[in-house]
Amino acid sequence: MTRRDDGREDNELRPVRITRGFTNYPAGSVLVEFGQTRVLCTASIDEGVPRWREGSGQGWLTAEYAMLPSATHTRSGRESVRGKLGGRTQEISRLVGRSLRACIDLGAIGSRTVTVDCDVIQADGGTRTAAITGAYVALHDAMTYLGAADALVDPKPLSCAIAAVSVGVVDGRVRLDLPYEEDSRAEVDLNVVATDVGTLVEVQGTGEGATFPRSTLDKLIDLALEGCEQLFVVQNEALAAPYPGELPKPDPTAPKRKSFGSK
Amino acid sequence: MTRRDDGREDNELRPVRITRGFTNYPAGSVLVEFGQTRVLCTASIDEGVPRWREGSGQGWLTAEYAMLPSATHTRSGRESVRGKLGGRTQEISRLVGRSLRACIDLGAIGSRTVTVDCDVIQADGGTRTAAITGAYVALHDAMTYLGAADALVDPKPLSCAIAAVSVGVVDGRVRLDLPYEEDSRAEVDLNVVATDVGTLVEVQGTGEGATFPRSTLDKLIDLALEGCEQLFVVQNEALAAPYPGELPKPDPTAPKRKSFGSK
Amino acid sequence: MTRRDDGREDNELRPVRITRGFTNYPAGSVLVEFGQTRVLCTASIDEGVPRWREGSGQGWLTAEYAMLPSATHTRSGRESVRGKLGGRTQEISRLVGRSLRACIDLGAIGSRTVTVDCDVIQADGGTRTAAITGAYVALHDAMTYLGAADALVDPKPLSCAIAAVSVGVVDGRVRLDLPYEEDSRAEVDLNVVATDVGTLVEVQGTGEGATFPRSTLDKLIDLALEGCEQLFVVQNEALAAPYPGELPKPDPTAPKRKSFGSK
Amino acid sequence: MTRRDDGREDNELRPVRITRGFTNYPAGSVLVEFGQTRVLCTASIDEGVPRWREGSGQGWLTAEYAMLPSATHTRSGRESVRGKLGGRTQEISRLVGRSLRACIDLGAIGSRTVTVDCDVIQADGGTRTAAITGAYVALHDAMTYLGAADALVDPKPLSCAIAAVSVGVVDGRVRLDLPYEEDSRAEVDLNVVATDVGTLVEVQGTGEGATFPRSTLDKLIDLALEGCEQLFVVQNEALAAPYPGELPKPDPTAPKRKSFGSK
Amino acid sequence: MTRRDDGREDNELRPVRITRGFTNYPAGSVLVEFGQTRVLCTASIDEGVPRWREGSGQGWLTAEYAMLPSATHTRSGRESVRGKLGGRTQEISRLVGRSLRACIDLGAIGSRTVTVDCDVIQADGGTRTAAITGAYVALHDAMTYLGAADALVDPKPLSCAIAAVSVGVVDGRVRLDLPYEEDSRAEVDLNVVATDVGTLVEVQGTGEGATFPRSTLDKLIDLALEGCEQLFVVQNEALAAPYPGELPKPDPTAPKRKSFGSK
Amino acid sequence: MTRRDDGREDNELRPVRITRGFTNYPAGSVLVEFGQTRVLCTASIDEGVPRWREGSGQGWLTAEYAMLPSATHTRSGRESVRGKLGGRTQEISRLVGRSLRACIDLGAIGSRTVTVDCDVIQADGGTRTAAITGAYVALHDAMTYLGAADALVDPKPLSCAIAAVSVGVVDGRVRLDLPYEEDSRAEVDLNVVATDVGTLVEVQGTGEGATFPRSTLDKLIDLALEGCEQLFVVQNEALAAPYPGELPKPDPTAPKRKSFGSK
Repeated sequence: MTRRDDGREDNELRPVRITRGFTNYPAGSVLVEFGQTRVLCTASIDEGVPRWREGSGQGWLTAEYAMLPSATHTRSGRESVRGKLGGRTQEISRLVGRSLRACIDLGAIGSRTVTVDCDVIQADGGTRTAAITGAYVALHDAMTYLGAADALVDPKPLSCAIAAVSVGVVDGRVRLDLPYEEDSRAEVDLNVVATDVGTLVEVQGTGEGATFPRSTLDKLIDLALEGCEQLFVVQNEALAAPYPGELPKPDPTAPKRKSFGSK
Repeated sequence: MTRRDDGREDNELRPVRITRGFTNYPAGSVLVEFGQTRVLCTASIDEGVPRWREGSGQGWLTAEYAMLPSATHTRSGRESVRGKLGGRTQEISRLVGRSLRACIDLGAIGSRTVTVDCDVIQADGGTRTAAITGAYVALHDAMTYLGAADALVDPKPLSCAIAAVSVGVVDGRVRLDLPYEEDSRAEVDLNVVATDVGTLVEVQGTGEGATFPRSTLDKLIDLALEGCEQLFVVQNEALAAPYPGELPKPDPTAPKRKSFGSK
Repeated sequence: MTRRDDGREDNELRPVRITRGFTNYPAGSVLVEFGQTRVLCTASIDEGVPRWREGSGQGWLTAEYAMLPSATHTRSGRESVRGKLGGRTQEISRLVGRSLRACIDLGAIGSRTVTVDCDVIQADGGTRTAAITGAYVALHDAMTYLGAADALVDPKPLSCAIAAVSVGVVDGRVRLDLPYEEDSRAEVDLNVVATDVGTLVEVQGTGEGATFPRSTLDKLIDLALEGCEQLFVVQNEALAAPYPGELPKPDPTAPKRKSFGSK
Repeated sequence: MTRRDDGREDNELRPVRITRGFTNYPAGSVLVEFGQTRVLCTASIDEGVPRWREGSGQGWLTAEYAMLPSATHTRSGRESVRGKLGGRTQEISRLVGRSLRACIDLGAIGSRTVTVDCDVIQADGGTRTAAITGAYVALHDAMTYLGAADALVDPKPLSCAIAAVSVGVVDGRVRLDLPYEEDSRAEVDLNVVATDVGTLVEVQGTGEGATFPRSTLDKLIDLALEGCEQLFVVQNEALAAPYPGELPKPDPTAPKRKSFGSK
Repeated sequence: MTRRDDGREDNELRPVRITRGFTNYPAGSVLVEFGQTRVLCTASIDEGVPRWREGSGQGWLTAEYAMLPSATHTRSGRESVRGKLGGRTQEISRLVGRSLRACIDLGAIGSRTVTVDCDVIQADGGTRTAAITGAYVALHDAMTYLGAADALVDPKPLSCAIAAVSVGVVDGRVRLDLPYEEDSRAEVDLNVVATDVGTLVEVQGTGEGATFPRSTLDKLIDLALEGCEQLFVVQNEALAAPYPGELPKPDPTAPKRKSFGSK
Repeated sequence: MTRRDDGREDNELRPVRITRGFTNYPAGSVLVEFGQTRVLCTASIDEGVPRWREGSGQGWLTAEYAMLPSATHTRSGRESVRGKLGGRTQEISRLVGRSLRACIDLGAIGSRTVTVDCDVIQADGGTRTAAITGAYVALHDAMTYLGAADALVDPKPLSCAIAAVSVGVVDGRVRLDLPYEEDSRAEVDLNVVATDVGTLVEVQGTGEGATFPRSTLDKLIDLALEGCEQLFVVQNEALAAPYPGELPKPDPTAPKRKSFGSK
């Protein structure tokens, strides 16, 4: 079997690293790396929910994905300067939010909003799947933080772990975790978001200027689920260490804290 | 087996109607109806391509999806008034464009741009899949128009037909072509874009506040492909009639025409 | 006397058709056609009024006019994509709103807002006057709907009918209801909005790269009023049929309904 | 006959003053005052025309109208801060541009663009009509400037003078040149743009929450034309003095100047 | 010593004129002229404060600076048309606001907002410093107005006068109050905002494509403070005359007035 | 003497760290840390210059500063989502650009544009001064990169080093390098940009709700220049190591490379 340009087997992930507590202010702050792809994922908590959700007794979780201009091989324009969000940015932001809402019990966090920010520091393919994988860990830390503050309605607001990986057909071969060089010439590209209890959250597959048979789809999903299994192991190892910062102490006499975004 | 609220079987499409030549100016203009969902799909052709594509000798195809404010059960705000495109609008526009680019040989249309507009007149679920299904027919008419003008590099620029349908899990049952009432309470929602040569173009599946096992995904895709087969029949029947308008006559001595958007 | 290109006399309208109930969700939904010009006019009703009108005990009526990109001979750009409304769009939206507010007693509808949407499906001159003429019928249906729901303070909120028509000087001749081909080369262009009780609502006349004597203005207004008389007949005929949909039943014990935009 | 609140007869203009050379850099710069209404009207000339007009051999004239935030009785928001132009602003800008294009031979100014800016310093009703009346004088000065530079194709590019005035029905009386206090409670409001050769350029009449008979329209136009006659006298008197600044000297050997906006 | 192009000594201001009551509606309205630079500075007062300041018991002061398109030698684009504020505009607006907040006791004006508008009518260098110098006088008049209405918590809300001037190094010489011609070729450019009690409010110095020694900075600040002393004299002379308009009479039985922007 | 909250002397910098090659694609990529403040500074090079600079034979340098939403103690809104740049962001972007243009010979880099991006990862006061200090190092690396590619007109395009630091008066004491906690309650705040040849580039001092005597300004500048001396040492140490990545090899026969943003 021919190795890939970076020496990996077809079914091998790039080296995955998860660094908790990468920055200090958000309740959860994680740098996730899939090879050269690096994404800073943070989870901040604010009191209150969007207007359309008020009175539901439920919290909310929303996500924003963005790319630093210097993150790409050739510098890309800054969306804040252009004054509007690109379609790709909004599409991925929505995907990250939906994916994480699949694992959280929004009734458990009270009338609060979790904002997940995924800012791509360096992009080498698979930024959206790395973002989801890292964001789950940041979300986990934020829940630990809320729990320590005695601010959770239910002590276990997360029902499962969430991870995501890209797979694709490159040079006629079904491959896991495509870097930019492979992604840009893939015939088929599939992103899978899965849970550690064996179910699927999102499946998004696209023929890039080509179409693909049902049998290829099946192989791609098999491989993606294999990849997610490995990611759950990395997440678990990262979460084995204690919370990377100072946890609040519950104080039943204190007035309700307004924001959990800073420590 | 229990019938659905509208009397259909689980694996039954809503009545699908395709009206060609619905408006007069675009080279292709189709009203597509999936039950109460109605989308006006047009294909307009302009000379020239976007700047980043200049010099490639290839044409381009782009799509824009939008919803009339009065199309929804409760009137929705107008994006032009708000001054920005919503994420959903951009996401679907990109999906429609990618789906149609899977069937067209962009080298065959010369240095021209096809703009596909999908404007939803009435929305009752499945607007994006209806849009793709109708847009293919509008694109087909636009190619006929270009061919009559002797403006095609290759006389057969479309390699296959494209259709799309939504499937989902509602009340625990796998169902085809969800209307709004089912879509809004579906546990899983999947949109499939397929070709009439048996391959897939796009697969987008989402657990709506839930996750789903691999076996459900398989059943959903089976049912969607069945649905697409029926849609290809409807498309073929619609395209059996002659071009709904006056076709241009080729004139080798004439200067190149600037635009094929009007007749 | 020389006939016009489309065979009409100078003082003849194009064939005018009014189709009520063209779509199903708004309280009033009308497709109006002046020859090849086709505009979808809807009237949706929401509880509440704009902030500046709160506490007045009066309702409000506002209008939004827009053109589908595919409606013109050559495809025009989408204003939502450009991120701003053109001056012409806003000008016509304001005109439609003012015109309809001339016939409605806003005290009669309670603290509600009627939003009139005029979306041009196909443009062949006179879109703003067709829009006003059709919007009146949609507004009439919306009032019928409100009346059936027992939601009117005064059972007859409309004091008169409103219609509009364009007139102009083309080839030195005073002509009624200009199609695009005449409009684009007219020396003078006048839009008149009138009531069926013989009064004027709006008069907007412009010399297009030319100026015009007072006597021409007089002739143009005479002809426009003649045209409006014919439009009132068409409106009346259209409104002779019963409400095209299911009317709500008044229920004095029910809590006030939040929205009348859907049926 | 009862006098108006400000002591005027019904058919009397407010004191009208025209100050040429109010600022120094534009080729034409005029402060026009209709009573308390004050508008700075400037005409700047740049080489080149908008892209859609290139190659026509014709020049172009465009206008922009705006209101200073402090110009109104109660401070109004700044459109540049809100990030979008209001409908009223665009509507008046378009009106001013159309009105002035009625008097200028755009072929005579070569491939140049005249930009007319009308900035309202203080608003007390009739700002659009004051703007047009003052802008004509600024345009006249700009043409004198171009002529002195030997830059005109035809030495007399203006075919007539242009002035505008508002009329309305207030307290049941037909009145000329309404100040804000009358304008805000007028039943009918009409703006007329006319030429000094006895023809009309624009007529825009609106029933404000009311409709009006044809006979009222006739009386309003009679009175407006009377008012314009007086305005032409004021314009002529203002233009009797020499150009308020230094005129360029023609220099046939010099390269074409890029801009006539500064002196 | 060589004179400057306009005949001034290096340490001489341009003729400075301050005209109070330039327009009639704002509580303070001042035209300030530094030679050919002319800025209209107004101070309007509204009841209420921004949301983030509510409940503080303190008022607020904010400023907006803008340039008329015709104010510059070559016409500049209109920011409202472009749909966004330039960086320079925002930077100067913030500077003017900060500068004036240094002299006002915001607790003394109650829960009100002062909006200072500085609109440049003609620009010949030093517009931001002229704006601050004039705005102080407009603010002073607005406080007189509030005092007359018996609406001040503390009768003396202004602790000192504020003025500003530009200095720079041109042709190797340290010069005061640079006109555009000098400013555009200055090697160093410094704006100083000072109080009449001998202290500094803002110092902003920039090497324009060059850097400068500490000793130059010292000379520049010395000269700027000298210039400010002269400006305080001009401000005082202007403020020696009575309030240019009608002052309100206090009426303890009247309900609180909503706005002090109009008289 | 009382120590500061973080144990520092009044004239002591926070620990400053400069990490070159923090990301891989830009020609220069530096993480700069002033205590808890961390800014990613990159310098990317593109062929070509802005339109207004074309034909000058000179290159251009521009800068963009931004803050990640999660960088602040309490999460701040994303400017790309709001659709416009805040005034502070633009002000700092302009400052960084001006500061770096003071040290570069833009004629030496040919017709190219250097874009400096300063993205704040974590904000604890002094982000703009940290950004300038780090950006100089990134710019230095980018020049090394261009030199290796044999793409410099002059082998030494940088005439000096640039660093910046904040100083302020806190609790009545003149202090160096303020963290957020001190900055937020400082009475005076001054940012100084200086060169390693003893000159000043920018001086921006503000009384925060207070004014300050000339003598305080002098002390602040003295202290800031002291601080900059220490920063030049840190920059030099960081730049003593070789270029952190692979340098291009000059190839005289190769066509000119389009972009130096990626390696």
